[in-house]
Amino acid sequence: MHAPVAPHTARGGIDLGGTKIEAVVVDARNNVLGSARKPTPNIGGPPDVAAQLAAAVTEAARAAGLEVASLEGVGVGSPGVVDPEGRVSGARNLSGWEGTFDLAGVLAKKLGTPVRVGNDVQVATDAEFKLGAGKPYRSVLGVFWGTGVGGGLILDGRPWIGRGGAGEIGHVVVEIGGAKCGCGRRGCMEAYAGRDSMEARARRRVEKGRRTELFTLMKEHKRTRLTSAIWAHALERRDKLATELIDDAIKALGAGIGSALNLLDVEAVILGGGLGVRFGQPFADRIATAIQPHLFNDQNPPDVEVAALGDLGGAIGASLLVGRAGR
Amino acid sequence: MHAPVAPHTARGGIDLGGTKIEAVVVDARNNVLGSARKPTPNIGGPPDVAAQLAAAVTEAARAAGLEVASLEGVGVGSPGVVDPEGRVSGARNLSGWEGTFDLAGVLAKKLGTPVRVGNDVQVATDAEFKLGAGKPYRSVLGVFWGTGVGGGLILDGRPWIGRGGAGEIGHVVVEIGGAKCGCGRRGCMEAYAGRDSMEARARRRVEKGRRTELFTLMKEHKRTRLTSAIWAHALERRDKLATELIDDAIKALGAGIGSALNLLDVEAVILGGGLGVRFGQPFADRIATAIQPHLFNDQNPPDVEVAALGDLGGAIGASLLVGRAGR
Repeated sequence: MHAPVAPHTARGGIDLGGTKIEAVVVDARNNVLGSARKPTPNIGGPPDVAAQLAAAVTEAARAAGLEVASLEGVGVGSPGVVDPEGRVSGARNLSGWEGTFDLAGVLAKKLGTPVRVGNDVQVATDAEFKLGAGKPYRSVLGVFWGTGVGGGLILDGRPWIGRGGAGEIGHVVVEIGGAKCGCGRRGCMEAYAGRDSMEARARRRVEKGRRTELFTLMKEHKRTRLTSAIWAHALERRDKLATELIDDAIKALGAGIGSALNLLDVEAVILGGGLGVRFGQPFADRIATAIQPHLFNDQNPPDVEVAALGDLGGAIGASLLVGRAGR
Repeated sequence: MHAPVAPHTARGGIDLGGTKIEAVVVDARNNVLGSARKPTPNIGGPPDVAAQLAAAVTEAARAAGLEVASLEGVGVGSPGVVDPEGRVSGARNLSGWEGTFDLAGVLAKKLGTPVRVGNDVQVATDAEFKLGAGKPYRSVLGVFWGTGVGGGLILDGRPWIGRGGAGEIGHVVVEIGGAKCGCGRRGCMEAYAGRDSMEARARRRVEKGRRTELFTLMKEHKRTRLTSAIWAHALERRDKLATELIDDAIKALGAGIGSALNLLDVEAVILGGGLGVRFGQPFADRIATAIQPHLFNDQNPPDVEVAALGDLGGAIGASLLVGRAGR
């Protein structure tokens, strides 16, 4: 039980994902007072998404016993390129979001409280840096290994977002002219390591006659996609195709993260995302081993740690965007 | 002509290269008052190199009409990994420098003035940022395309060196398991784009029967290596092998620099180094075109500019390490 919270000291945080929206309300010490989860609309466009975001954080506030308008503010972690005013462009994994939408402006008007928007992966990295596995370090690279592969950077204690589009480690090139990526380019790390790409590769090989338990397990799990749990299950069963594709993914992660480290020489890599968290430290260790042959400064490798915050890490990170962020 | 310089306001700067040492003495406004050039010792070890560095900056001070001990300090740009105390490790392109050597300490004792050491490519990037092509920007990636491919970073107006080993853009992986690099690893950008690697590739193809004017031109130029001038000459003559290898180099630079931009989203790329400066803006434009297909944030590409300072850029950059650096 928490003591009653004074108005304007609680903050909202929303993690806008491709399939679900997670919202939290936290107190000044980042304790979660209430939370809510809603599906991301898969038809319509940005205004529909904004309405669902508002509904989610309103529900989280209600769960915390607060009015949403009484919050100090609300932070949103969004996919796509986010500008300093909170406009979001090219969030291609969301329905109808090819152009630019003033998410911060529209949401602030709906909620009656200030809204700040940041890149989803960057805010999850901030959360790990301030409250999770990144706490012992001053400079970290967050790698979120899931549907795609996202990245976030903390350099000398501060988020680095470049002109708003930094951190796209999934689109570091590991093979010129290599496999086709979901982004339309070729040879990106994500084209080998992203869960969507791994599934597409598995399907193509099955069409060519390869055998695998992956899709049988998918039916057993009552899913229509190869989730992290299904990949983990297939590996336990020593499925050959699954093992091969995961090996390729780890090789690509080793080269791509190794490249990033040669450029940035940070103290630690924090491995999050659906697959990263599911597979845990043994896979973080395998990735560290795959990085090593590419590391220029090879006598001083960084630590590779698993993200410590749970499913709510992205939403808690978003709440850190509000007001006196950084506490 | 410059007015007489008050003692302790002039600074020394030394650029320690694989084949030559450039030293300058500059005044408080970074005007070059004197300079000297010496060959880098190719036998012996770090103490021999330190003696030659001392001789070079002493000669530059004499040319400026100053005693070296009267300088505010001396900065050195060195290859290898440089720690905050000015110890240099693994400067593999220098004779006998596999281990760690206290370059700042040894040199300060010899010269009777404080010495600061930085990474050679990083200080050249600083010089371009403060005094050259990088002046209009707050965040730049310096790419020095020569014997190898070095990189330097300025993020939000400050050099980013990580734990001392950042900026190794030459060793960003562009092809997993690809061409062997001079560093011993495989698939690095430098394995395709570094002048040493391009020469090795040319020699191997000639051994296999390919024809080229490259080595005839080398004799005409009275050189034992394929210098930047020789590559430029061969391209003018439309030599097929030279054209092919330069095309491969540009493709690798496009992928490697594109990867760095996806990660960092800086405002500008400054292209320096022997080949970069020799080939100039037309090649900077070709590299920009080669970057484009890899750029995630492809509607907002950074500027790609040629380094504006001449041969003394590295030494002037090193002098910026001294005292109130940054003015």
